[in-house]
Amino acid sequence: MTVHVSRKEHFNAAHKLYNAAWSKEKNVEIFGPCANENWHGHNFDLIVTVKGEPDPDTGFVIDLKMLSCLIRAEVIEKLDHKNLNIDVDFMKGKLASCENLSVEIWKILSPKIRGISKFGKLHSLRLYETPRNYVEYFGE
Amino acid sequence: MTVHVSRKEHFNAAHKLYNAAWSKEKNVEIFGPCANENWHGHNFDLIVTVKGEPDPDTGFVIDLKMLSCLIRAEVIEKLDHKNLNIDVDFMKGKLASCENLSVEIWKILSPKIRGISKFGKLHSLRLYETPRNYVEYFGE
Amino acid sequence: MTVHVSRKEHFNAAHKLYNAAWSKEKNVEIFGPCANENWHGHNFDLIVTVKGEPDPDTGFVIDLKMLSCLIRAEVIEKLDHKNLNIDVDFMKGKLASCENLSVEIWKILSPKIRGISKFGKLHSLRLYETPRNYVEYFGE
Amino acid sequence: MTVHVSRKEHFNAAHKLYNAAWSKEKNVEIFGPCANENWHGHNFDLIVTVKGEPDPDTGFVIDLKMLSCLIRAEVIEKLDHKNLNIDVDFMKGKLASCENLSVEIWKILSPKIRGISKFGKLHSLRLYETPRNYVEYFGE
Amino acid sequence: MTVHVSRKEHFNAAHKLYNAAWSKEKNVEIFGPCANENWHGHNFDLIVTVKGEPDPDTGFVIDLKMLSCLIRAEVIEKLDHKNLNIDVDFMKGKLASCENLSVEIWKILSPKIRGISKFGKLHSLRLYETPRNYVEYFGE
Amino acid sequence: MTVHVSRKEHFNAAHKLYNAAWSKEKNVEIFGPCANENWHGHNFDLIVTVKGEPDPDTGFVIDLKMLSCLIRAEVIEKLDHKNLNIDVDFMKGKLASCENLSVEIWKILSPKIRGISKFGKLHSLRLYETPRNYVEYFGE
Repeated sequence: MTVHVSRKEHFNAAHKLYNAAWSKEKNVEIFGPCANENWHGHNFDLIVTVKGEPDPDTGFVIDLKMLSCLIRAEVIEKLDHKNLNIDVDFMKGKLASCENLSVEIWKILSPKIRGISKFGKLHSLRLYETPRNYVEYFGE
Repeated sequence: MTVHVSRKEHFNAAHKLYNAAWSKEKNVEIFGPCANENWHGHNFDLIVTVKGEPDPDTGFVIDLKMLSCLIRAEVIEKLDHKNLNIDVDFMKGKLASCENLSVEIWKILSPKIRGISKFGKLHSLRLYETPRNYVEYFGE
Repeated sequence: MTVHVSRKEHFNAAHKLYNAAWSKEKNVEIFGPCANENWHGHNFDLIVTVKGEPDPDTGFVIDLKMLSCLIRAEVIEKLDHKNLNIDVDFMKGKLASCENLSVEIWKILSPKIRGISKFGKLHSLRLYETPRNYVEYFGE
Repeated sequence: MTVHVSRKEHFNAAHKLYNAAWSKEKNVEIFGPCANENWHGHNFDLIVTVKGEPDPDTGFVIDLKMLSCLIRAEVIEKLDHKNLNIDVDFMKGKLASCENLSVEIWKILSPKIRGISKFGKLHSLRLYETPRNYVEYFGE
Repeated sequence: MTVHVSRKEHFNAAHKLYNAAWSKEKNVEIFGPCANENWHGHNFDLIVTVKGEPDPDTGFVIDLKMLSCLIRAEVIEKLDHKNLNIDVDFMKGKLASCENLSVEIWKILSPKIRGISKFGKLHSLRLYETPRNYVEYFGE
Repeated sequence: MTVHVSRKEHFNAAHKLYNAAWSKEKNVEIFGPCANENWHGHNFDLIVTVKGEPDPDTGFVIDLKMLSCLIRAEVIEKLDHKNLNIDVDFMKGKLASCENLSVEIWKILSPKIRGISKFGKLHSLRLYETPRNYVEYFGE
């Protein structure tokens, strides 16, 4: 009996889409206004989904308060009111796209979720850049 | 040609998270404010997804008006403005977590959906406790 | 130059609508399922609006982080995961309707907002019981 | 490393549910108010999900601006402020259900997405008729 | 002590914007795709706000279940799954704009709200044509 | 007979809260993480409300397509994917708070709305910085 359990958190950050191997002109050609050298930003929403069998003692796959604390301490703290291209160690040298960001968040959360839940494991991350644009990553 | 069709319904209910085999202190330690003996509550949203081939005569996998009526009669009627720990027969003796509630709702709806749709069968239940906490169950 | 500034917070609580001066039958007749003696509950959203001239040094009518802290400490802390009829001192002896709750929250917040903002004063409270039912109070 | 990327677009359209092989009475019996001969309508939301490996040069599975332009040119332009039963060439002779509409949109978008993304392919379409009724199609 | 109380209801309808005193060409010039002769449609949301003093016996300005029933019987029943230009008696001979529709709904609801609440009177109607376009009417 | 008509538009921008007359330390003390020198950002929503009598020929207070075009050309174009502190001429020398931004947007839109509507005038601007923080300005 497997249940998926999800928690939504949010953060506000600045970024630009910019490939340092390209000229400024090529960046503007490919990324358009997203390449604005003075940055732009978003209110991001992050949905973390953990999958597993409910613990018979608690009825929980994972304690959502603990999951929320984990996401805040390990991810939101490093991203909220930050610049994704400059301030975030795990995005150094990577294009600041949602695709890449979701993959890096997976690497951080996946082992730590094992640490706070004996029944659940990370199933997916959904990252909203705007209410109309989002990505989802399943770990492979 | 398989299509997934979904209907969202809602209900308002009280509950507490409480394991009767534990002391009051242990319940508060594990469940925190969710163990408040005087209860708390939520506006729950329930999304029921049915999967199948559209009927060539109607273009429908399932008639959503009939699905809505079924969910209301069999599930919402028993949960809305109720106490999940006290008033709901199919939750008796179970921890009133969303995980357990979604599994019990599956047992109720799954056979009855077969009765109102020759083309569709229950695919998943998604149960929102708050806009930021939800569970999903796929029947096994 | 007056600007209205708003902050939304939320809490989850149980309540019932019950007039102790009436019989159980009359309560059910008037309040319907909201009178369920075993309680029901909601995810409440509270929007607090403060009105004033922006401070020339900060561009703020009120610091929204301080407003958020104030609402959480003085209101949410007393309501979240609580029973509005039993656990909340300022609702003792009052019908646990949204109308009455918004009036009591006004009495708490109005003087304290004066304390954290020299430019703003409380303008309105909007309290959502569900996404489709809400009340608004302007202090008189 | 596969990521799912989604874009939401919307359109406003009229339709009725009506099987031309049936009498007017049978249509009303089966489809209820949805068979109103003078039409009714909806604000539809369409979520298009593309799946693939992020391009190492851009960090993108697909350029969401290009995906948005494609959906608008090939789908929204043909559906927005239109009558699904009368004005839409690819729905001629088909029941104007969301199930059938999602299948036809798939046929249009699937080959064209290959044309604008070397890394991504169409994974799913989700079509909301109302915030509480929606269908999802995965292409088979 | 005055509180505003609001209830949201919804309906799905078809309409077109068309001034019968003008040529087809002028209608298209002024109303653009909204003049499509084959209609288009929307999911409308209607928020009805009643203002008054809470009844000391119930804590209510108005019983929201009764308000919901009234709106459904007098307004939604006449608009849902209908064509605003053809099927709705109180819109006959009027341009089917949201502005005009909100004024006509006011005329219907205002006297009847007096009939179900001794403490409240109609304060405003807010009518959403889409999540991004809406009108509000205060009765004069 | 006066109706309020509203249109919602959005933009994504970077900013920081920073008073150039203060030391870096004082900025961090007052503005907290909002003073991060490397910027952060938001998805802003802007609701523009125009008030007036509906034109008897069109049923419109203002043509919402024209209002949308005006807002996009005069405001969104200058703010979307921009840095509010650096890239926006009308914010030069002003603290980049939502309060100040709403006042400047009023100055731009108010005279131009007169130009596209003989019946309506600007009534209010509501600017959401996040779904939980917003300001509203009424022009004085």
